[in-house]
Amino acid sequence: MRILPISDWLTTYSGQDFRDDLFAGIITAILLVPQGIAYAILAGLPPQLGLYASILPPVLYALLGTSRTLSVGPVSIAAIMIAVALTAPEVSALGNPVQSALILSAESGLILLLMALMRMGGLVNFISHPVLAGFTSGAALLIMASQIPQLAGLKSPSCGIDVACYNEYFSGVTINATVFISTGALALLLFFGKPITSVLKKLHVKPSLITAISKCGPLLTVVLATTAVSYFNLSGQLIAVVGSVPSGFPELGIGFLSESLPQNTWERARLLLPDAAFIALIAYVESVAIAKVTANLRGEKISPNQELIALGAANIAAAVSGGMPVAGGFSRTMVNFSAGARTQMAMLIAASILGLAVIFFSPWFANIPKSALAAIILVAIFRLVRIKHIIHTWRYDRGDGMAELATLLGVLILGIEEGITLGIILTIGSHLRKTSHPHIAVVGRIPDTEHFRNIKRHSVETWHHLLLVRIDESITFANISYIEDYLGAELRRQPNTKHVVLIFTSVSDIDTTALEALEQFNHSLQAAGKTLNISEAKGPVMDKLEKTDFLAQLKPGKVFFRTEDAVKELGYMA
Amino acid sequence: MRILPISDWLTTYSGQDFRDDLFAGIITAILLVPQGIAYAILAGLPPQLGLYASILPPVLYALLGTSRTLSVGPVSIAAIMIAVALTAPEVSALGNPVQSALILSAESGLILLLMALMRMGGLVNFISHPVLAGFTSGAALLIMASQIPQLAGLKSPSCGIDVACYNEYFSGVTINATVFISTGALALLLFFGKPITSVLKKLHVKPSLITAISKCGPLLTVVLATTAVSYFNLSGQLIAVVGSVPSGFPELGIGFLSESLPQNTWERARLLLPDAAFIALIAYVESVAIAKVTANLRGEKISPNQELIALGAANIAAAVSGGMPVAGGFSRTMVNFSAGARTQMAMLIAASILGLAVIFFSPWFANIPKSALAAIILVAIFRLVRIKHIIHTWRYDRGDGMAELATLLGVLILGIEEGITLGIILTIGSHLRKTSHPHIAVVGRIPDTEHFRNIKRHSVETWHHLLLVRIDESITFANISYIEDYLGAELRRQPNTKHVVLIFTSVSDIDTTALEALEQFNHSLQAAGKTLNISEAKGPVMDKLEKTDFLAQLKPGKVFFRTEDAVKELGYMA
Repeated sequence: MRILPISDWLTTYSGQDFRDDLFAGIITAILLVPQGIAYAILAGLPPQLGLYASILPPVLYALLGTSRTLSVGPVSIAAIMIAVALTAPEVSALGNPVQSALILSAESGLILLLMALMRMGGLVNFISHPVLAGFTSGAALLIMASQIPQLAGLKSPSCGIDVACYNEYFSGVTINATVFISTGALALLLFFGKPITSVLKKLHVKPSLITAISKCGPLLTVVLATTAVSYFNLSGQLIAVVGSVPSGFPELGIGFLSESLPQNTWERARLLLPDAAFIALIAYVESVAIAKVTANLRGEKISPNQELIALGAANIAAAVSGGMPVAGGFSRTMVNFSAGARTQMAMLIAASILGLAVIFFSPWFANIPKSALAAIILVAIFRLVRIKHIIHTWRYDRGDGMAELATLLGVLILGIEEGITLGIILTIGSHLRKTSHPHIAVVGRIPDTEHFRNIKRHSVETWHHLLLVRIDESITFANISYIEDYLGAELRRQPNTKHVVLIFTSVSDIDTTALEALEQFNHSLQAAGKTLNISEAKGPVMDKLEKTDFLAQLKPGKVFFRTEDAVKELGYMA
Repeated sequence: MRILPISDWLTTYSGQDFRDDLFAGIITAILLVPQGIAYAILAGLPPQLGLYASILPPVLYALLGTSRTLSVGPVSIAAIMIAVALTAPEVSALGNPVQSALILSAESGLILLLMALMRMGGLVNFISHPVLAGFTSGAALLIMASQIPQLAGLKSPSCGIDVACYNEYFSGVTINATVFISTGALALLLFFGKPITSVLKKLHVKPSLITAISKCGPLLTVVLATTAVSYFNLSGQLIAVVGSVPSGFPELGIGFLSESLPQNTWERARLLLPDAAFIALIAYVESVAIAKVTANLRGEKISPNQELIALGAANIAAAVSGGMPVAGGFSRTMVNFSAGARTQMAMLIAASILGLAVIFFSPWFANIPKSALAAIILVAIFRLVRIKHIIHTWRYDRGDGMAELATLLGVLILGIEEGITLGIILTIGSHLRKTSHPHIAVVGRIPDTEHFRNIKRHSVETWHHLLLVRIDESITFANISYIEDYLGAELRRQPNTKHVVLIFTSVSDIDTTALEALEQFNHSLQAAGKTLNISEAKGPVMDKLEKTDFLAQLKPGKVFFRTEDAVKELGYMA
């Protein structure tokens, strides 16, 4: 394993590479400042937790990660998961949400490193695309719903099922200053999507400049909205703003572990552990999915296990530098990639710009209106809701479509973590159901040869007291029940059978469950005066069986080297 | 599906069958009376809940079940799970454990019926034998530990980690009347195991009588211990006894749903639901495992889905007739089988005897000492702890051995439900890890033929700009990542490749995740000026692909009917 993947590209780094990375890094940083603040507020945290998460963690990822374009930092899906974790009654009762967030970062990081140690990178492939798509759509819908009150300048309704309360709540939605800013911000952001690109194209602006300009929408929105608030002196009562952001670099250290009573810290860590596990899982799966997309486009290779290490280190870096949990962000990575980033140098540049921003511009962040940030989140998240994808999936594969829909509904109705758990259980369940039906064939001999083939497909010789069955897969707990049923049915169909021969050409393993079932099957055959025999067992399978007394139990049944030998000895013996 | 499997045997029922069943039914009933009372007390319930569970539920199973010898009623493993559920702080705070137990019965029954409706009988095969064995050993150890205080005439210690408290507790263990009865009961029960059988054999008693006599140990123990308690007037302070048991049949109905405040009932039902799910799962898995053993010995067939219906109905019968949750019991079923039971008539007879017992003998049950019942449980459960099995499993298959040990330790350290969950996750995880590595071969043409074979095993023709890859399994989310890595590695090894041909002879399905990954793979090949092609795709796979625009995306890549066609068109084209 490469310990420092950064050495792969640093040794051959050129001046042209640097110019490309510098441009991409600046563009990404321009996006990262408002996103960092917005996602921290989405998570219910002070803005600096998003900014700090954009400085040290991407540096760690740049050193250790295998993707050259992944932009690691605060992401929306993780932010809503953090919000859910922090608002759980038991956790919020402990107070100090910042400490909780840092503990989440630390635990997510440790869990990712533990997964790397256990080489579990591959196991996470078991979150199928439909489940991931359903999860993303559901979480995006939840985020959008959470932003409506911000846009309307209201607190979230806490009405439960009291209809009168909702009436009163919605009667409070009037055209106020906040709605004015929200509407303006949305209009500006939407204009900086496709419209500005086509306008600039018509003006024959060169493509790299178009990219740069079109990515400035969020920053421009924030600047204009903040200027308006400051100029008209609207902050405070009229318009909710971000509030003061501490200036300068974050302090490094694990002081967050002792920021409250020691017993509180451990209780908090215990309560947050399941949430941290889900955040780590989602951070990893989303990051690798995005990293793979851009790596494929350039013919590079992502190493899943190295990604676990890099993301784990990035999250621990977030914890010790006062940042919220991080992952690879989809929109930022695509911006970075399409702005022409060659290597992670682009992210090191973006991180440096963020570092400068927290040193020099922190006072300017205080008057950013939350409604403008809500508009940025809304526009960024809107593309993630892909209802059409469910319809496509459903048409292509019914089972996958059901899993996607169930995950989406699960996220909306049961909760984020419950939804993805449901989706994973459904996919793995249906996968197991499929793999538990191995191919089995009753075979006979092609006349005058030593070839044995399926009696259903070829005209072959058979012997009425001899049942030759070929099992085309390793025999395990997952399929032994199906195999038992198959053999039982064949025996009821051919009650004169005296000898059963199992042909093990394709059997590479027999696990304990299967062995015990075969012993039981042999026992019941013997009780009925029949024998069980084996032919063509591979070396490793025989090695395993010889460690048990199964072969002794088989007697007078035997192990034959070739199926032909079994036929010669048993077929003409009756 | 057969609605009433009882009709399978009732139509051909003979006088000899009845004589066999009558004998077996009486023997089983003799065992069932003390077991029913003992398991109810093990679960922390009044004795009648075990007795009632032995009357109506086996009748329902006899009508609906597919095993002819399974003895359904109270079982030890379910009893300890009930005890755990009822002593959870939130549940015990609601009081009225009898209502909780009946709700557990009802919920277990409904869950089993729901599983039958969803045809999930097969999914439960995914509890492997090692996990089940580890679970059983662990639960048996927990049960044995719970009986020690009963045997010693003490309450369970509730000392936590206070050493002084344990010292005081154990200093209370003195030779008292309870220990006297316990020791006597254990000695008698052990004598009624192997010793009495060999003594009777030497006296040339006929085998069926030996069976009958050796199964009377528990009943005799109870009778002698109860007589001693009554004669010496020891009940109450000196010796803990069962206490009064209501006389007569249980009342039928769902009155238990309204036995407390309505909001309590629903809260109780909600709290108990996860426990009910685990009890249902274990009841089903254990019952089917036992039923299969006896069915195999007689060449009969167990239908997993019908078993879900039968056990579900039996549990609902338990709920409406005042009984605790039921399952098929291992020891009773083996007794019933070896006593010569032919059909479920034996269980109908046993149930009738239990019915007579609760009508006529209830007053006699009040003075049964709990220590005698604890001795019965201890002797019955001891065989279930199979440490040697773990060693055997470990020697045969390291992974299975670890799963078994982890389940056992999980049950002891984390708890019963957590332990089995851990075991299931470990087995399915390691199974998925194995199935995610399909067989893939780079192939070439055997000269002068149209046969394509693995280049590693045969000397074959190849073309330097043509990569022919045969994938020997359906392509799904579980293995697509491995396949992608394989193809990526091959392409890096053969950078001059212009055309990739995937040979789909063994591919029966491509799921959504795999399709999206193939689209991505095609996209990146095209970006590098290469083409992706497919050959020998089966009909159903083509039908699915034609519903998407994947085939259009492939262009100029193509779908070839035969690999030979692909070679003719692409191999000589460069």
